[in-house]
Order: sequence, then structure tokens, then C-alpha cells
Amino acid sequence: MADDPNTRERILHTASGLFQRQGYHATGLNQVLAEGKAPKGSLYFHFPRGKEQLAAEAVTAGAHEVRDELRGALDAARGPVDGLGMVADFLGARLVATGFRAGCPVATVALDMAGESETIRTACAAGYASWGVAIAERLADWGVPVQRRESLATVVIAAFEGALLLARVRHEVTPLHEVAELVGDLVQRECPATTAL
Amino acid sequence: MADDPNTRERILHTASGLFQRQGYHATGLNQVLAEGKAPKGSLYFHFPRGKEQLAAEAVTAGAHEVRDELRGALDAARGPVDGLGMVADFLGARLVATGFRAGCPVATVALDMAGESETIRTACAAGYASWGVAIAERLADWGVPVQRRESLATVVIAAFEGALLLARVRHEVTPLHEVAELVGDLVQRECPATTAL
Repeated sequence: MADDPNTRERILHTASGLFQRQGYHATGLNQVLAEGKAPKGSLYFHFPRGKEQLAAEAVTAGAHEVRDELRGALDAARGPVDGLGMVADFLGARLVATGFRAGCPVATVALDMAGESETIRTACAAGYASWGVAIAERLADWGVPVQRRESLATVVIAAFEGALLLARVRHEVTPLHEVAELVGDLVQRECPATTAL
Repeated sequence: MADDPNTRERILHTASGLFQRQGYHATGLNQVLAEGKAPKGSLYFHFPRGKEQLAAEAVTAGAHEVRDELRGALDAARGPVDGLGMVADFLGARLVATGFRAGCPVATVALDMAGESETIRTACAAGYASWGVAIAERLADWGVPVQRRESLATVVIAAFEGALLLARVRHEVTPLHEVAELVGDLVQRECPATTAL
């Protein structure tokens, strides 16, 4: 059973949820095994470098999931304001579905561990970078000049990350929609190829 | 010695630093006492409700310190772009001074504990709200209409919070300056009473 690839996926998915809800240190490996319904021994079989490896891979898996949702929202959008509105919607849905306990799969682990583990810090940086690439690609489609894409994508990510944090402590999704509206407007002004949608 | 008010201050200051660097769960009360050079017994004397009370009060103290710096920067500024540039400078200096290990005195504790403790969640929300008030006051001086101040202040805080997180995982302060420039520009457009500075 230990080499079942579904076990590996299930451990990662469970770990990602627990880490983002309660942080790195409060999450025990036994809790991951129990909630992931994974047999004893499977954790070190799939993650021989232990909790640090598990956290780094859980951050990567969670970040890629959000990147795919981000890409889906932006691809379906008619323009930046519409697109960032859809991003606010799916991020808000993540918060509401977990009673405002989970939002970003990177941030909690990043703040707990970026100063302690280079492996984890690098995984967090790569996760955010993957979102930056997805956003910059769409900004290119929308006609944003190449020299503006990276900094605009950084501001979009920063504003939504901060809004997720504010939404978690306030128990309301309003900050996500305020960011979508105002930052969407900011992006719109740099998009000659779209009308204001 | 347990009732020395300086002991209380020192415990709070030490706890605030440790919580933001390493999170709530990794911070032990013995470490706070040792690094704060506080006598045994002083912790429960000053914080009878234990670690939860200490974390809530450390978040409040740290948030008020940032609010005062924020107010100083915005009061000295000639306009939004200049002002947010100074905010980026002082937040960047906090990161650099700690080797990118500490940035925001609220975020790490918020993500670790907002789902677990109402006392801590409320302290985090109040900390961010105090920054919102400081920013909204300055937006008023700059001529931003009253109905726009709160959402603009939320976006400013969200963008800087996210930028602090990105800066911590990237080990560079660039995201703070990108936010200052682009969000400063966004605020500028809503400020009829200032020239573009």
C-alpha cells in the first residue's frame, strides 16, 4: 500500500490543507497520516526527508492548484476588471468553504518557515513565481508592454495575498473585491488592447 | 521585580519579535522569558491568561508601532506617491534589519491562529483597522472623497502586506517598491487636492 500513488497525492492534499489552516509547527505528521487515511510508514516512503520535504511539496502542489484556477479565471475573462473579479470570486469561495480558516496554500508556511528552511522558502518563492507567469501571460494577451508585465503581476499577487489575510482576520470577503475593483482598474489603464471590462 | 512595568514592555517587545519571525506555535514562553531577560513568574503576573493573551497583546503593541511609523511617513509626505514610497522604505528597512525574518507584526500570528482563537483574531483585525484609520485620515487631507477612503486604505494595506510576504520569500525588497509606485499612482488619481508627488 505504501507505494500507491494515490496515497502520495492524498498525503500532499491533506498536508496542504492542514499547513495553511494551522501553520507548519502545529501540524503533526501523525495528524497528516490520520486525516489523509494513509498507512503508517507511507509518509517516510513517499517523503524520505520528512516534514520539511512534505511542507515544500505541499506548498508546490497547493500553489499549482491555485495557479490553474487563476489561469482558468483569467482565460475566461473579457478584460482585467472582469478577470480580477473572477479571481476574487474563487479566492473568496476558498475562504468561505473553510470557514475563513484556509486561503492561500503558501502564505502560512512561508511566514512560519521562510526564515528557517531554504527548501521551504524556495518552494514558496517558486509557487508565487508560477502565479506571476500565469498573470504576465494574460497581460501580454491584453497588450500590456513587456517591461510593465512583471511589476504589474507582482502588484496583483501582493494585493490579493494581503486581501486574503485581511479577509481571514475580518471574516468577510470584501477586501478581495475591493482589490479586484481598484487593481483591476489599474491594470485596465495599461491595457490598450481591451475595452474596460 | 515582577511588577516592574519595564518588564511587561520588554516581554511584549520580545514576544512580538519572536512571533513574527517564527510563528505562534514555535515560540515558547521560556524563550520569551529568556530573550526578554524577564524573571520567571513575571509572565503569568503580567499576562495571567497565558500565551493567548501575550500573543494578542504583542500583536496590538507591534501593530501600533507600525501605525505610528506609517503615520510619520504619511505626515511627512508631499503626496501619495511620495508617501507610499516612504512606507516602502520603512517596511523594507524592517525586513533588511532582521535578514528578511520579520516584517509584519500581525501576519504570522494571524495566519497561525485566526482560525483558533477569537481573542487573537480580534486583536489582528483591530491592528489592521488602526492602520486603515491612519491612512484614511491622510487620504482625507489629500482630498479623497469620504466614500472612497476606506476601500483605498484597504487596498493600500493589502498590497503592502502581500508585498512584505513576497519580499520575505524572495529575499529582496523590490515588491514593496513596485507596490508603492503602482498603488501610489492609483491613490494619486483619487486625490484632487495634491499634485503628482
